[in-house]
Amino acid sequence: MNTIGFALRLTIFGSSHGPGVGSVLDGCPAGIPITAEMVQREVDLRKPAPGIGTARAEEDVVQVQSGLLEGKTTGAPIQFFIANKDTDSSKYQAFRVTPRPGHADYPALVKYGQDHDIRGGGQFSGRMTAPLVAAGAVARSMLETKGIRIAAYSQAIGKVADDKEYAFPEIAENRFKHSTRAVSPRVAALMEKEILAASKEGDSVGGIVRCLMDGLPVGVGEPFFDTLDGELAKMMFAIPAVKGVEFGAGFSSAKMRGSEHNDPFRITNGEVRTETNHAGGILGGLSSGMPVDLKVAFKPTASISREQRTVDLSKKENAIVRVQGRHDPCIVPRAVVVVEAAAALVIADLSLRGGFFAR
Amino acid sequence: MNTIGFALRLTIFGSSHGPGVGSVLDGCPAGIPITAEMVQREVDLRKPAPGIGTARAEEDVVQVQSGLLEGKTTGAPIQFFIANKDTDSSKYQAFRVTPRPGHADYPALVKYGQDHDIRGGGQFSGRMTAPLVAAGAVARSMLETKGIRIAAYSQAIGKVADDKEYAFPEIAENRFKHSTRAVSPRVAALMEKEILAASKEGDSVGGIVRCLMDGLPVGVGEPFFDTLDGELAKMMFAIPAVKGVEFGAGFSSAKMRGSEHNDPFRITNGEVRTETNHAGGILGGLSSGMPVDLKVAFKPTASISREQRTVDLSKKENAIVRVQGRHDPCIVPRAVVVVEAAAALVIADLSLRGGFFAR
Amino acid sequence: MNTIGFALRLTIFGSSHGPGVGSVLDGCPAGIPITAEMVQREVDLRKPAPGIGTARAEEDVVQVQSGLLEGKTTGAPIQFFIANKDTDSSKYQAFRVTPRPGHADYPALVKYGQDHDIRGGGQFSGRMTAPLVAAGAVARSMLETKGIRIAAYSQAIGKVADDKEYAFPEIAENRFKHSTRAVSPRVAALMEKEILAASKEGDSVGGIVRCLMDGLPVGVGEPFFDTLDGELAKMMFAIPAVKGVEFGAGFSSAKMRGSEHNDPFRITNGEVRTETNHAGGILGGLSSGMPVDLKVAFKPTASISREQRTVDLSKKENAIVRVQGRHDPCIVPRAVVVVEAAAALVIADLSLRGGFFAR
Amino acid sequence: MNTIGFALRLTIFGSSHGPGVGSVLDGCPAGIPITAEMVQREVDLRKPAPGIGTARAEEDVVQVQSGLLEGKTTGAPIQFFIANKDTDSSKYQAFRVTPRPGHADYPALVKYGQDHDIRGGGQFSGRMTAPLVAAGAVARSMLETKGIRIAAYSQAIGKVADDKEYAFPEIAENRFKHSTRAVSPRVAALMEKEILAASKEGDSVGGIVRCLMDGLPVGVGEPFFDTLDGELAKMMFAIPAVKGVEFGAGFSSAKMRGSEHNDPFRITNGEVRTETNHAGGILGGLSSGMPVDLKVAFKPTASISREQRTVDLSKKENAIVRVQGRHDPCIVPRAVVVVEAAAALVIADLSLRGGFFAR
Repeated sequence: MNTIGFALRLTIFGSSHGPGVGSVLDGCPAGIPITAEMVQREVDLRKPAPGIGTARAEEDVVQVQSGLLEGKTTGAPIQFFIANKDTDSSKYQAFRVTPRPGHADYPALVKYGQDHDIRGGGQFSGRMTAPLVAAGAVARSMLETKGIRIAAYSQAIGKVADDKEYAFPEIAENRFKHSTRAVSPRVAALMEKEILAASKEGDSVGGIVRCLMDGLPVGVGEPFFDTLDGELAKMMFAIPAVKGVEFGAGFSSAKMRGSEHNDPFRITNGEVRTETNHAGGILGGLSSGMPVDLKVAFKPTASISREQRTVDLSKKENAIVRVQGRHDPCIVPRAVVVVEAAAALVIADLSLRGGFFAR
Repeated sequence: MNTIGFALRLTIFGSSHGPGVGSVLDGCPAGIPITAEMVQREVDLRKPAPGIGTARAEEDVVQVQSGLLEGKTTGAPIQFFIANKDTDSSKYQAFRVTPRPGHADYPALVKYGQDHDIRGGGQFSGRMTAPLVAAGAVARSMLETKGIRIAAYSQAIGKVADDKEYAFPEIAENRFKHSTRAVSPRVAALMEKEILAASKEGDSVGGIVRCLMDGLPVGVGEPFFDTLDGELAKMMFAIPAVKGVEFGAGFSSAKMRGSEHNDPFRITNGEVRTETNHAGGILGGLSSGMPVDLKVAFKPTASISREQRTVDLSKKENAIVRVQGRHDPCIVPRAVVVVEAAAALVIADLSLRGGFFAR
Repeated sequence: MNTIGFALRLTIFGSSHGPGVGSVLDGCPAGIPITAEMVQREVDLRKPAPGIGTARAEEDVVQVQSGLLEGKTTGAPIQFFIANKDTDSSKYQAFRVTPRPGHADYPALVKYGQDHDIRGGGQFSGRMTAPLVAAGAVARSMLETKGIRIAAYSQAIGKVADDKEYAFPEIAENRFKHSTRAVSPRVAALMEKEILAASKEGDSVGGIVRCLMDGLPVGVGEPFFDTLDGELAKMMFAIPAVKGVEFGAGFSSAKMRGSEHNDPFRITNGEVRTETNHAGGILGGLSSGMPVDLKVAFKPTASISREQRTVDLSKKENAIVRVQGRHDPCIVPRAVVVVEAAAALVIADLSLRGGFFAR
Repeated sequence: MNTIGFALRLTIFGSSHGPGVGSVLDGCPAGIPITAEMVQREVDLRKPAPGIGTARAEEDVVQVQSGLLEGKTTGAPIQFFIANKDTDSSKYQAFRVTPRPGHADYPALVKYGQDHDIRGGGQFSGRMTAPLVAAGAVARSMLETKGIRIAAYSQAIGKVADDKEYAFPEIAENRFKHSTRAVSPRVAALMEKEILAASKEGDSVGGIVRCLMDGLPVGVGEPFFDTLDGELAKMMFAIPAVKGVEFGAGFSSAKMRGSEHNDPFRITNGEVRTETNHAGGILGGLSSGMPVDLKVAFKPTASISREQRTVDLSKKENAIVRVQGRHDPCIVPRAVVVVEAAAALVIADLSLRGGFFAR
């Protein structure tokens, strides 16, 4: 359903082409500093960049209609609403009969019937992540009161990958300098080229977002099932187009020996640290005190302007569909702030659960 | 916490060296055929194999103490209990001071204090998956009444990977023929060698389990957050040692073009199918009608017999730890039936939620 | 927290004197007929009546910003927003120091600190029930597609009680004819007098709302804990000023003998019915097929214009407080539609859970 | 379903005539002092008293199979199991066709079909409260570490009511001195007579349990929906035979004026207290710092030995049923410790949620 989180609960609503999209964040302690401007700043980071992003021009003005008073949370639910302004629904009715490959159209029509709002993908739209980012701004502010910081970047776009092991501050400082959300200017240029090449061919590319969470206390996570990795993974798979999630050495762990994978503990500046971080900051579903290191794989945007093979559901025969409209040739750059917000919401929730916030 | 699922809810309890481990499965409709024998059969598939598994010899006799009557579920919660018989806790007290690398010891001690039951890893033990498998047997029986089947196998162990795209029946038929849970005899032999090589060196190896879920109706999953992929991922990360989860093309999606990744719909024998299955059977968090194709990456067993660097928590200084005791040099073969059970529980839960079971 | 329900989930947000109040209803099946007008009609029934109600004149225009398309639900969350227009917050700051007796001011200040929004009671305001009524309109429409109907009335106001055992149709037809929500004109006149008498003395009165739920299938409710009576009770206690809840013979059951209380089953027109309904339509937490018969006790409005004894929290000494502003001398008449909406939400949720709605 | 609570979660399982009944308590912080003996003591208080109780002689030996180590909780789930020893299921098969009035038989058969375990009422049995009491012992120990205490007593049995306003210590000290759980010897004697009179006539009586919760901090409860009163009410209605719940002045609030009902705040020994406690210790769903004052109404035991009118479900015609077996002529005395345990579980859960336990 459309609510996630336990002690800090996010509910989203709206659809791509309805009146708007919004969210309610419940469980935030009173007294967290947050203003509409702080929220707007995050939401703006999700906007498409000229050239490499969609032409749909949404202002994405966030209205905060509950839960704030004089720059602080009151302890009541916080509500965000973002009106849809630039919608063109004319192109979508055809997809009720000829569902778009790679989209939710077909299973959604089977599940909800013809009452499903298919315009712009309806409730399955990537636009649902805008109010998630708004709520994430509150979670981020919560976490910053405890010295916890989160930063993500485009680690790979198409065939361009940046395998440098950046330290947290380098990522935090540079991640929003380039429209591709690459950390280095060199990689940024390559990634931009990769996107434009696909775009020119009426095609799209995927990529990988890497997200570091720094400053977590030890012990965040609620075993056996509500683990730090499990909760992060569940949240990430809610972001449209995500196909894989891994922590630390991730899939490459499979090929490693235990003697290599196990991160040795060491006392460093009086603190317990590990020499390496193959565990990605998580042991037994709990934060280990090392940075949480998450990678999220995105498939290429399903909407491409080329003709595609599909079926005609009414006639039960093969057909062709052409997806017109305005789309991002690569959603990875816009997804970077979404992954950060999503991570912030999970960390804030589990930190609340673990008693790391006095209430 | 120790409960997962929404309409079908699993609660686990116990610890590695306490009286036993168990689980309660709630929400199962009345009338599902299940016997203690059917449950035992699944739990037995999780036992270590001679040679490549641990020497800890647990009988793992499952007692069913609630919810069954005359070979069927009654609609009441079903409870399983498996006594611990072969425990040797003498070796574990040292880890309260010198936590084992790669294990939950350190964060657990920080989280729960010295009241944490560290013997055998306590509530973080892989042994907690035994009652999960017991409950999974019920979920599997539920699903089979609807023609839904699940089969997993060892797709990779250490550097041995089997990249053949097996069809579902081939996996289903062969997966438990070899102690490594490889599908083919050739790969099984290679994997066994890989495990024994690590074992001989006092080391361990990781691997990848691939799991196919066949016969799902279209529309299983509850967007925006309780997606089919998200719920499966959360469940998988609860299994100790899991470091990554992907569906269909997974991480390799990142490098693909949309025109390549999008699975074209086709009418096949009067049904809507896709030509390829890069989506791994999931679109928009909903089942598409194609087999759900999941890969789960396991790190090498954290317990290795070699000396390892750690810290002494009482003195706040570097130290050495030696992990004695009995351990699997590779947990992947035993994890295969665990992944199946975990998947069955998620699919059964979401199928119930989606109304695919009349109650 | 601010979410209730399991398969049908209501989240409320807002505060008495902030931008507005609203709610999100999630889990409603697609295709339920509902329009903004249907919702508005219910919300209007909650408005204060001239003479016996508060002078605060809120238009209470409901905006539906998500989840509807062409007069039907789409399966996505449904969102309601009601702007606050007629607020006067000037009178409330004093209550941060001298909390009002009978209100949440004191515990809320302890719980949330000075960031608590105390204006108009903030998130504790009776105004939060307006978006609950809006959501209830959808639940009611859901239930009507299954022949389930709900009707409540003022059974007692102050010392005026109406002990007649009305049948369901009589209640349904007459309950909104009088501003006091009495069923009979005679009782309505007496109740009005009772309210005006209290009002003239700067005082307030309480009362009892009786609510019948008719047409439920047998077996609604999810034992052991999510019982039909338990879920209704929890929901009712969320309505401000509720102090007691009983079903059927309720508290008078305590004095009865089993031979008198047990409702004998009889075949009536081919159906299983009971001769009496001391059980109030609930056996073992499940609907029995007889009308669910609920009584809800409301205390007198806490806001009265008389001087009251309180404490000065800053000086830790006794003090006097005078509650100015505009208040209902009796909230029972306005609560009638709130109780109906609250009941509809619970019944719809449990009916969904029980599989009485195909999805 | 069979799980209740949020941060402290109770799951129950078992049935009246199956292998046994049990429960799992999850979320309890590590380090709470508890032994099997402490648990057994509470469970023993639920046993039937000679003369006024049932002849079914269950030893009710509690096994604790998880979560305790050296007299303290470990932070892992705590599991309790109580074997059924003295069962006689022969009498129950008839009720599949001729359901007992006042019992769950009829709706349970409709809901679960013939797979429902009807023996002894199955999962609807009052016996399910035994493992609830076991878990309550842990909650009680948790609360005692914070100075929170709970005590209940039989306030009314049949027509004998004890309207004296006992202070907390008087109740706490005397409540288990008499088998009827009356506070005073005089009332105890009258109540015993009342029960025996009903019993002699093959009949049963109901009653009222009053429960005080003392020493709660201010602010326990999670508005808008997870209120202190709402959560207590939901839990109480799970106890078989409960028909009404009220707090403080409860239903009599309906007849009061606001000037009378509002409890004036006063500084007493430097603390904020109220002069009266019509609110029953709850304002706006939050604890006010005054004792929580709860009354729970129980109907007379449904099982009576007299012949009763029912229906034959197979023939769809009227019939007669005779309920043989062993039953309590009044369950109120045994319910006293159940109400206490149920209250302790709710208070501990909400206290955890409110951050009153450091974790």
